[in-house]
Amino acid sequence: MNYSLEAGGKRIRPALVLTAAHAINGSADAWKSAMRIACAVEYIHTYSLIHDDLPAMDNDDYRRGKLTNHKVFGEAMAILAGDALLTHAFRLIPQAVREDGVPLDAGLAIVEDLATYAGAAGMVGGQAADMQGEQGITTIEQLEYIHLHKTSDLIVFSVKAGARIGGASVKQLELLSLYARNIGLAFQIQDDILDVIGDEKKLGKRTNSDVAQQKVTYPFLVGMEESIAMVSRLTQEAKDAVTEAGLASPEQLLRIADYLVQRDH
Amino acid sequence: MNYSLEAGGKRIRPALVLTAAHAINGSADAWKSAMRIACAVEYIHTYSLIHDDLPAMDNDDYRRGKLTNHKVFGEAMAILAGDALLTHAFRLIPQAVREDGVPLDAGLAIVEDLATYAGAAGMVGGQAADMQGEQGITTIEQLEYIHLHKTSDLIVFSVKAGARIGGASVKQLELLSLYARNIGLAFQIQDDILDVIGDEKKLGKRTNSDVAQQKVTYPFLVGMEESIAMVSRLTQEAKDAVTEAGLASPEQLLRIADYLVQRDH
Repeated sequence: MNYSLEAGGKRIRPALVLTAAHAINGSADAWKSAMRIACAVEYIHTYSLIHDDLPAMDNDDYRRGKLTNHKVFGEAMAILAGDALLTHAFRLIPQAVREDGVPLDAGLAIVEDLATYAGAAGMVGGQAADMQGEQGITTIEQLEYIHLHKTSDLIVFSVKAGARIGGASVKQLELLSLYARNIGLAFQIQDDILDVIGDEKKLGKRTNSDVAQQKVTYPFLVGMEESIAMVSRLTQEAKDAVTEAGLASPEQLLRIADYLVQRDH
Repeated sequence: MNYSLEAGGKRIRPALVLTAAHAINGSADAWKSAMRIACAVEYIHTYSLIHDDLPAMDNDDYRRGKLTNHKVFGEAMAILAGDALLTHAFRLIPQAVREDGVPLDAGLAIVEDLATYAGAAGMVGGQAADMQGEQGITTIEQLEYIHLHKTSDLIVFSVKAGARIGGASVKQLELLSLYARNIGLAFQIQDDILDVIGDEKKLGKRTNSDVAQQKVTYPFLVGMEESIAMVSRLTQEAKDAVTEAGLASPEQLLRIADYLVQRDH
């Protein structure tokens, strides 16, 4: 469990939990009561990577420059480490209520959101569709379904959870969900774009690997020009939603939207 | 997910959730508000069976007379079905608060209990110890550790969850935890005993399979006579704890303790 948690990564999801709590609440230490929930979402993300890397799934030997979990500990332990990380994420939520001042009703709403966005109708559903659809994806709708669930859902959870802890209104939760959905999708399309036009040194991996693996991507389906336009449209809509939400401190959320699409690795 | 949920089994864990709620509360429809939590524990149990049966784990082709999940749907889908069942169990708890009248604080305590008893310090920990310990188990303490976590922990969760819904006191929760711990352990020892002296027709599987697979069991470690004495001692202690708890309707809990050890399959 620790090996994979400590393997690094961008930590986008926990950063979004903390940032959303701060954006709603405005006070400098609003992130403190959101820290345990930020960890919970990283636990979920980490479990999903461990299971995705298994031989029966994507069969990857390396992740973030380190051997994947099952290459070090064996398949049985990797499956169990994933199961335990997934389970432990839910343990952190009642602890956040007891220890960090997260309100009881927000805690239970966060449990339900996490189970919804991470489960069969969310992230796991997206992964299952991806597994079943390999080679068979022919429409932009199918590809969008996979990315909305496989990637965006956990990002939506992160932003909503932080917003709930910060005390968001129903309207603010809706607008921030739209923000999160859009940056999640833009993030994924940008990944596809970088695989074609990125700098191998900055990416730390070979470009054109999607083409080599015959993966269906946005540039493949709609062309490079339209893919770049989509990223910019989705990002603008995301930022508009944040502005409309009338938050106490919207700056960091706006900056993250720009960072995700302006990154070159 | 449905294939494995509908494969049958004794449904001991959900029965214990409903029975504990009734035992504490005493009213004839006390089980109604516990039904969703009873389903949650069966989801957890079912996910654990799907993952345990995988080739990397116990590599079983049959379970309850049907092909195992991965033999029908492939390994990738079996891993994901397990992940989704585990996640969905947690989704049922906030729903039980919203729809079934489970109090908010009991709901959050049940989330924490489930994550604790099913996670790294509970069921998954027991399974990991079992995997790592194969062939290397030499003491009764090691064997007990595995069974307490692999089997008893989810039974303790079931009884505690039902008791919380029924409105149990702290003292009653403690006594019922002892009851559940003991019947879980007795259940496991009885399984070992039946593997040696049971009737193959009633069991629906070959006897002496543990010996053939060189599994370390209670009869192997302490002998048949002492194993039988342990079952009877654990069962009596379990029943004493129920009696001491001063429940409104203890009869069914007492009957389940007897059923588990008097069963011949």
